[in-house]
Amino acid sequence: MMKKNRVEISEVGPRDGLQNIKTIMSLPDKKAWVSALADAGLSEIEVGSFVPPSLLPQLADTAELVAHALTIDGLTVAVLVPNYKGAENAVRAGVHKITIPLSASESHSLANVNRTHKQMLEEVEQIAALLRKLPEGRRPHFEGSISTAFGCTIEGAVPEKKILELAMALMTAGCDEVGLSDTTGYANPANVQKLVKAVKTEVGDKNLTGLHLHNTRGLGLANALAALDVGITTLDASQGGLGGCPFAPGASGNIVTEDLVYMLDAMGIETGISLEKLIVSRHMLHTYLPDEPLYGFIADAGLPKDYRS
Amino acid sequence: MMKKNRVEISEVGPRDGLQNIKTIMSLPDKKAWVSALADAGLSEIEVGSFVPPSLLPQLADTAELVAHALTIDGLTVAVLVPNYKGAENAVRAGVHKITIPLSASESHSLANVNRTHKQMLEEVEQIAALLRKLPEGRRPHFEGSISTAFGCTIEGAVPEKKILELAMALMTAGCDEVGLSDTTGYANPANVQKLVKAVKTEVGDKNLTGLHLHNTRGLGLANALAALDVGITTLDASQGGLGGCPFAPGASGNIVTEDLVYMLDAMGIETGISLEKLIVSRHMLHTYLPDEPLYGFIADAGLPKDYRS
Repeated sequence: MMKKNRVEISEVGPRDGLQNIKTIMSLPDKKAWVSALADAGLSEIEVGSFVPPSLLPQLADTAELVAHALTIDGLTVAVLVPNYKGAENAVRAGVHKITIPLSASESHSLANVNRTHKQMLEEVEQIAALLRKLPEGRRPHFEGSISTAFGCTIEGAVPEKKILELAMALMTAGCDEVGLSDTTGYANPANVQKLVKAVKTEVGDKNLTGLHLHNTRGLGLANALAALDVGITTLDASQGGLGGCPFAPGASGNIVTEDLVYMLDAMGIETGISLEKLIVSRHMLHTYLPDEPLYGFIADAGLPKDYRS
Repeated sequence: MMKKNRVEISEVGPRDGLQNIKTIMSLPDKKAWVSALADAGLSEIEVGSFVPPSLLPQLADTAELVAHALTIDGLTVAVLVPNYKGAENAVRAGVHKITIPLSASESHSLANVNRTHKQMLEEVEQIAALLRKLPEGRRPHFEGSISTAFGCTIEGAVPEKKILELAMALMTAGCDEVGLSDTTGYANPANVQKLVKAVKTEVGDKNLTGLHLHNTRGLGLANALAALDVGITTLDASQGGLGGCPFAPGASGNIVTEDLVYMLDAMGIETGISLEKLIVSRHMLHTYLPDEPLYGFIADAGLPKDYRS
């Protein structure tokens, strides 16, 4: 296998996890959780989303949480934005990375953000123009993430040709890179490798490095493993498997950060993350959200005897 | 990836699953379940174990279940035996395949069957001699399965050298093939590939084709995927993830047959198994064991929209 010996994990729990539960976590708890995640070694955390508070009251304090996260040394502070207005707020908050999702399925795009592909790509162009005006040191990295890339619960299969077109359109509109998201948990090791290879060929190897995988059908870690073989070096994951996609019915369950870190660590692939501290952070999360189920195996099973010996 | 386009799944639920729960399933229910599994396309089923009923009352009717399973056209009827006496009973019952476990960890071997490696290898020799006396058409296939191959909850890590020695000793003692079992859920994709390659080199490529993997730490399917890349063509799995190892504390959870079939099927790898019928069989199992938790994802999540289109 031609795996990199280091994989970056982008923790999306504070955004993707919290937006999918009804409980609203308090700002002090969010701050403490983000700090604990960073302390465990997560070097990139998606801390929130700049959306109207009326739509996602859970994330209404994103600007305040960004301000806190920016005080953490070495942390890449990422947010999701659905549109230009969100990007303006993200820039004002001073984030390091902005991700805009673009649904490969137009039906999903309309259901999710009420916009067609064309309208979304216009937003991307406007955001890129906004970012270009910023001085280089203050310009956030800009990712266009193609959601429902492996199929949609509304439209079903999405042709590969459509994904390639959208990936190229995102780059042309001014994204720094594209990502692929298995919003609906339809990915399998074979189609992950096929699509990653095809998109890398289309937009350039360096312009697709990250995947957002779900564990809806139990294949999350197998898909992650398959992705490493085709040059993916960044994987999204969520502590306790919190979150998923609220507008894709039946689809839920991010990859569990703890389990992903364990797999990579056990394989001798560096992540820079301390499993022990990650478990501490998980316990904190459970304290803050006592009624939310947390998923995953390693937290309960514990490390193998003689691990690391 | 150099995967075979067909993978055999050996269903171990009726043995490994049932021996690990307190409920004793009735013989008629076992027969119906085995028939349903075979009807779903499982071509090999480990239906029981010839052990003293005082030790495992759950499997006391193994001979009767074997007799039933032998009536199913095309089914390979497999059993586990801990010793020569068990093998005699298995031969008398007319099984197609006998597997004897040999713990790589001697502490585990003593705890599990109260025998040293030397004593176990003597049993293997005696069984091989017994089988050699049988006419070829009635001679069961004889597998020596190295349990705790990836580490032991008592001894911890087991040196690769020890596994290679035991694998060769099993072949020398008269086994037709060896298998490796992740009894404790310590395997990861990297050590699966490393150990499989090493054992294949030691005993010959064709003499190691199967793995018994657990999902204790969530890596079951990722390990299965990794195993396919190094020439493994048979994987054990258990419907609903029932079972594990009763003498390895904290270790439990076979790979879920339904999820494994889904992964392979989605990847275009043939298994000969109908997922739909497998779900029917799972519902039967739940009816027979209403108080036992069944694991896995695909049964709840359902197939992707447009699957197979």
